[in-house]
Amino acid sequence: MADSNNTKNNQTRTVFFVSDRTGITAEALGNSLLTQFEGISFNKIHLSFIDTEKKAQDCVEQINTACTKDGSPPLIFSTQINKQFRNMMSKSNGVFFDFFETFISKMEKSLGSKSIHAAGMLHGLHNNKNYNSRINSVNFSLASDDGMSVKSFDRADIILIGVSRSGKTPTCLFMALQYGIKASNYPLIEQDLGTTKLPKILQPFKSKLFGLTISPTRLRKIRSERRSNTKYSSLQQCQSEVRRAEDIYHSNNIPFIDTTQISIEEITAKITNKFSLR
Amino acid sequence: MADSNNTKNNQTRTVFFVSDRTGITAEALGNSLLTQFEGISFNKIHLSFIDTEKKAQDCVEQINTACTKDGSPPLIFSTQINKQFRNMMSKSNGVFFDFFETFISKMEKSLGSKSIHAAGMLHGLHNNKNYNSRINSVNFSLASDDGMSVKSFDRADIILIGVSRSGKTPTCLFMALQYGIKASNYPLIEQDLGTTKLPKILQPFKSKLFGLTISPTRLRKIRSERRSNTKYSSLQQCQSEVRRAEDIYHSNNIPFIDTTQISIEEITAKITNKFSLR
Repeated sequence: MADSNNTKNNQTRTVFFVSDRTGITAEALGNSLLTQFEGISFNKIHLSFIDTEKKAQDCVEQINTACTKDGSPPLIFSTQINKQFRNMMSKSNGVFFDFFETFISKMEKSLGSKSIHAAGMLHGLHNNKNYNSRINSVNFSLASDDGMSVKSFDRADIILIGVSRSGKTPTCLFMALQYGIKASNYPLIEQDLGTTKLPKILQPFKSKLFGLTISPTRLRKIRSERRSNTKYSSLQQCQSEVRRAEDIYHSNNIPFIDTTQISIEEITAKITNKFSLR
Repeated sequence: MADSNNTKNNQTRTVFFVSDRTGITAEALGNSLLTQFEGISFNKIHLSFIDTEKKAQDCVEQINTACTKDGSPPLIFSTQINKQFRNMMSKSNGVFFDFFETFISKMEKSLGSKSIHAAGMLHGLHNNKNYNSRINSVNFSLASDDGMSVKSFDRADIILIGVSRSGKTPTCLFMALQYGIKASNYPLIEQDLGTTKLPKILQPFKSKLFGLTISPTRLRKIRSERRSNTKYSSLQQCQSEVRRAEDIYHSNNIPFIDTTQISIEEITAKITNKFSLR
């Protein structure tokens, strides 16, 4: 382990994400932990599908080479399940963070059951039903994108509404890919915004509606990247559309969220909380 | 902690995912660990945005209620950063798995730096550049979907090719959402499959091409869900298209992968490895 007297800020450290399979879980927790350290630049290396002794040995060599080059031990974030390969890496010159073994013994005790020690269960096709539901939901979202197929609304779990470029499509796709949620969207356009009434086509689906809003300044910026110097991207137009969209939400008691400062992950978490969709 | 003598298989256990923010990381590692236990059914409850004492107290109550109802302690997978709220939950009647604190002290020692203890850094907008790149890549993928805009090929990081329904679009979207990779796709249609030559439009971009293939039986099944009893979904047609697509990959030294048994996460991990795209 590195002696803290030998390290300093503004340093560069190498980080390895190691896994028998995709490495997505190792990345998720590893990156989450790394965000807690500022002033250090991390050189990230992804070592996925480490499923043979030869590959594990190559990892150890890469780790040791990085250690020599950096002059400080790399961090290794691992969801490796194979015990032999884990042992090899824990004996390397890096600092080994074992996301698997650290928790699995305590879980075995608590559940009164032995773990199966099988790799790649989460991001593989072992849970076929769940996987197919995710892929079908992606296709559903694409087919019903931007209100092009309102026929889909009765099959949708949720319908996002909002003005053009308020974040509907990426959020729908994220909900589909991550959770298999069937998400449609409907863009509020000029003809919908002339009144505070809900567009007729949405009225039968009121319980599925969720509104997105956004600051007019941010909206102008996003729209300008597509079509600069048009009425569409003018601040005045953005202000007017956003105000009228919010009037519709208020008048019809549609729950809504301001997406200006939050990510699609956060929007999704708020929506799935609200609708108990997970 | 549960006494293993009191637990049995075919049991149902309640699992809580707790976080100050989205809970995506807690879910990723928690679910990954749960896949290692068979014969137990897990009732999963997501408690995200736990950022006040009142909400933390509600969590503790939910955990304790589940414990009484199940007759065994729930598992709590937590990325909670706030120390006070973590302490409250660790004193509940559940078994507390602390994904944050377990590793953060060792990291502080190794990096010689104090962690900032700020919540929601990974899935928020703190890394704006990275986030914008992900959203732009989603829009890029959508705009260039199914070869509709070949103009995009020069800006693409990668171009997936394959017959209709071989998995190109969901993979492109996943690469965009997860890693901000600009992925285009081009469908190999009848007129492309009449020869082993690479379609003219793809020739300038050979170094960006990656082929997808799939078993004809699986392809027939997928196509039948869309259009059953058509030539398009017949086994003969699927066999012929797949064989000729693979001929193109072989003749032009295009790397390719069989998607029949693997998920979009696994396809993505293989491709990003191959092209060093992460």
